[in-house]
Amino acid sequence: MIKPRTPPGVMELLPPDQIAFQRMLDTIRRNFERFGFLPVETPVMELSEVLLTKSGGETERQVYFVQSTGALEKSGEGMPELALRFDLTVPLARYVAEHEHELAFPFRRYQMQRVYRGERAQRGRFREFYQCDIDVIGKDALSVRFDAELPAVIHAVFSELDIGAFTIQLNNRKLMRGFFEAQGVADGELQALVLREVDKLDKRGEDYVRETLTGEGFNLPAEGVEKILDFVKVRSTSHADAMAKLDALGEGSQSLREGVAELREVLELVRALGVPEANYALNFSIARGLDYYTGTVYETTLNDYPQIGSICSGGRYENLASHYTKSKLPGVGISIGLTRLFWQLREAGLLGKATGSTVQAMVALMDGESLPDALDIARRLRSAGINTEMQMEARKIGKQFQYASRAGIRFVVLTGEDERARGVVAVKDLLREEQFEVARDELASTLRVELEQAQALAGR
Amino acid sequence: MIKPRTPPGVMELLPPDQIAFQRMLDTIRRNFERFGFLPVETPVMELSEVLLTKSGGETERQVYFVQSTGALEKSGEGMPELALRFDLTVPLARYVAEHEHELAFPFRRYQMQRVYRGERAQRGRFREFYQCDIDVIGKDALSVRFDAELPAVIHAVFSELDIGAFTIQLNNRKLMRGFFEAQGVADGELQALVLREVDKLDKRGEDYVRETLTGEGFNLPAEGVEKILDFVKVRSTSHADAMAKLDALGEGSQSLREGVAELREVLELVRALGVPEANYALNFSIARGLDYYTGTVYETTLNDYPQIGSICSGGRYENLASHYTKSKLPGVGISIGLTRLFWQLREAGLLGKATGSTVQAMVALMDGESLPDALDIARRLRSAGINTEMQMEARKIGKQFQYASRAGIRFVVLTGEDERARGVVAVKDLLREEQFEVARDELASTLRVELEQAQALAGR
Repeated sequence: MIKPRTPPGVMELLPPDQIAFQRMLDTIRRNFERFGFLPVETPVMELSEVLLTKSGGETERQVYFVQSTGALEKSGEGMPELALRFDLTVPLARYVAEHEHELAFPFRRYQMQRVYRGERAQRGRFREFYQCDIDVIGKDALSVRFDAELPAVIHAVFSELDIGAFTIQLNNRKLMRGFFEAQGVADGELQALVLREVDKLDKRGEDYVRETLTGEGFNLPAEGVEKILDFVKVRSTSHADAMAKLDALGEGSQSLREGVAELREVLELVRALGVPEANYALNFSIARGLDYYTGTVYETTLNDYPQIGSICSGGRYENLASHYTKSKLPGVGISIGLTRLFWQLREAGLLGKATGSTVQAMVALMDGESLPDALDIARRLRSAGINTEMQMEARKIGKQFQYASRAGIRFVVLTGEDERARGVVAVKDLLREEQFEVARDELASTLRVELEQAQALAGR
Repeated sequence: MIKPRTPPGVMELLPPDQIAFQRMLDTIRRNFERFGFLPVETPVMELSEVLLTKSGGETERQVYFVQSTGALEKSGEGMPELALRFDLTVPLARYVAEHEHELAFPFRRYQMQRVYRGERAQRGRFREFYQCDIDVIGKDALSVRFDAELPAVIHAVFSELDIGAFTIQLNNRKLMRGFFEAQGVADGELQALVLREVDKLDKRGEDYVRETLTGEGFNLPAEGVEKILDFVKVRSTSHADAMAKLDALGEGSQSLREGVAELREVLELVRALGVPEANYALNFSIARGLDYYTGTVYETTLNDYPQIGSICSGGRYENLASHYTKSKLPGVGISIGLTRLFWQLREAGLLGKATGSTVQAMVALMDGESLPDALDIARRLRSAGINTEMQMEARKIGKQFQYASRAGIRFVVLTGEDERARGVVAVKDLLREEQFEVARDELASTLRVELEQAQALAGR
């Protein structure tokens, strides 16, 4: 006998949670499609040579290699031929480069699949997790206007997910670069080091960061450090405030001016796309992957749960697939790490409890003779589009109600001898806690109306 | 520069095909849920020790093992710790045994995920493919009535997938066993060998099989062999004919009688569930995995494309999870191998061509000044639930129409200076090939009505 168990670092759910998770996936997908993004799925296994174009990074150390039994027996030194994808960006780059001549650009794609990382086993860290990504890829060039579409998608997704107030925070790498250059931090690597220190503001406090940056090693002038500390604290409180804060940066270098112009255009279009100004803000501390993003960068946080961190991040990049093609493919994208988000929402008690089952009605079975009749009722309900479970074996009716109630099924349909004689069925509505009778022929339409009302009330 | 490519044996699709594939997945899921099946997802990686309980089989030789970089460096002899699932049945067994006390039985679950097998690379053979499974698992016992639900689900799925006439073929392992025993083929292994020969009827012809079974090696009596050859040719042509063919088997052994009684009950309930008799039939040649199934067995074939083989198979098994728990967990299940089915349908030209994009409307952009206005129109369409793509950059209008047409987008919305002045928008319907004007405020509702009509016509 072998103990049934899953490997550490994976999230496996019981059906009620799986239903909640699936509803989140569906909501995200529906909104991605609403904005015209097209679906892509890629294989979980890629050729190692194709997947691992950059060598020696953190990512590569976390990669999972795949070998069939045969390959394992023959395995000599070198790297195994296959590996599991560790994100959806590298597969996107490979996909776009491979199918370059079959795709129309700008290419809007969404992809919602699992990725794999050999993380250290730790609570809340996952080795297998869903990423829900959208990207717009241009050929040769891609207007900054596209950078404004993504906040509109994020707004649509998180409004419908209904997990509380959220803010999409925006910054721009060119603006940052221009600002840091003006403070004498011109070198890219030095900027990265300074930003890493600045990132410790929350944990170590302002004094610590100030001392580090003015102290040995960095040796930055005190005045410049004060400016940097003021800069990274900038948050806008409204659309007008965001514009004013951009104005306040003044003229500066070309890089700064470009960044300001881009952010200005993005913010105007985000507003034109109907995103309420409460849902977006400037945040000059946001940097994201420094060696990757080149323009707009995004993070999204839940206003009441800042400790959860960013729930949707991304930005603009210069060239998606330089390892695979000579074509220049600039793009902008965002990613939602859904497994981690789901886990955090559940930990914080933020998952809607009354989501209910996918099963909407259950046909109870009173006795063996009623079976053909009960099956016919189930058939009619299903034909009307109602998800219906059939009790195939007669049990005590109390047990059947208890089962339906625990399973989160709303309607229990009963048909005894008496009801059959009168051409009706009895229905127990476990949500409203009431019982009623309805003509057999009207059962399906009656339940449909009730279910559609409930859906409309839930705002879907 | 690395050549962008996928490993052999995986199916990667361009967006139009991915949309068609996703619609098939959605249809299957919708129908699984319609019958009250609950969603389960399991991790793609399982502990090898848990996954590979039976040793040395064909399956094990095809298994993919997974190792992180660290594990790879340390790897000594033994089996790697992790492996990719090769089907959804073993993970189901592990899941049900692991969560036994948290699940309600009978447990109806569906699972639609990819599985991995190190198959020989060959056209139409996949190393990564989707399986779409449903199973009902009982605790201690499970009424044969559940065996009748699965054909009803299969019927609902394939009717809605709309890929042509199909027949769900049924047989019963007890009936087969009883029949073979009566012909002097009592031993289980011998039965398996005889069935393997019988399986060659189509390819090698009746004479070849007759000679083999009467010849050296098998040495079966000629009369018995004739009976076997007649038996495996039995196909029913209607519900009444199926019943008559069961009657014609006579009394026989207990095993035969049990099998006949089970099939009779299943057929009656399949009819009560509203499955048309044209869609199911007895077929006494169907055996399926001989060491696994113990009662009802199913195969489903497309009437006009028998060469595609079974598109949905399964059956009744005695005990799901004997490797993981002492509890007896009988079950019945079926599986659709969607990747292979999709590939075959595409090869046979059976995929609907006019499926269209997920994108329903495109807002064209005439000039830069129209952008805020065009974004507002896009916002309104999306709020009304219409999937809308926005042209972010003004191009020649002919190019924009061409793009929409190639992408399978039905409506192109145009708003020029003239239209704006009159409070209208122009709409080109690429499906009906007509252009019309509509008041701005009525655009979304007008398109919605058109789209809903088209959906109703398509029968969804």
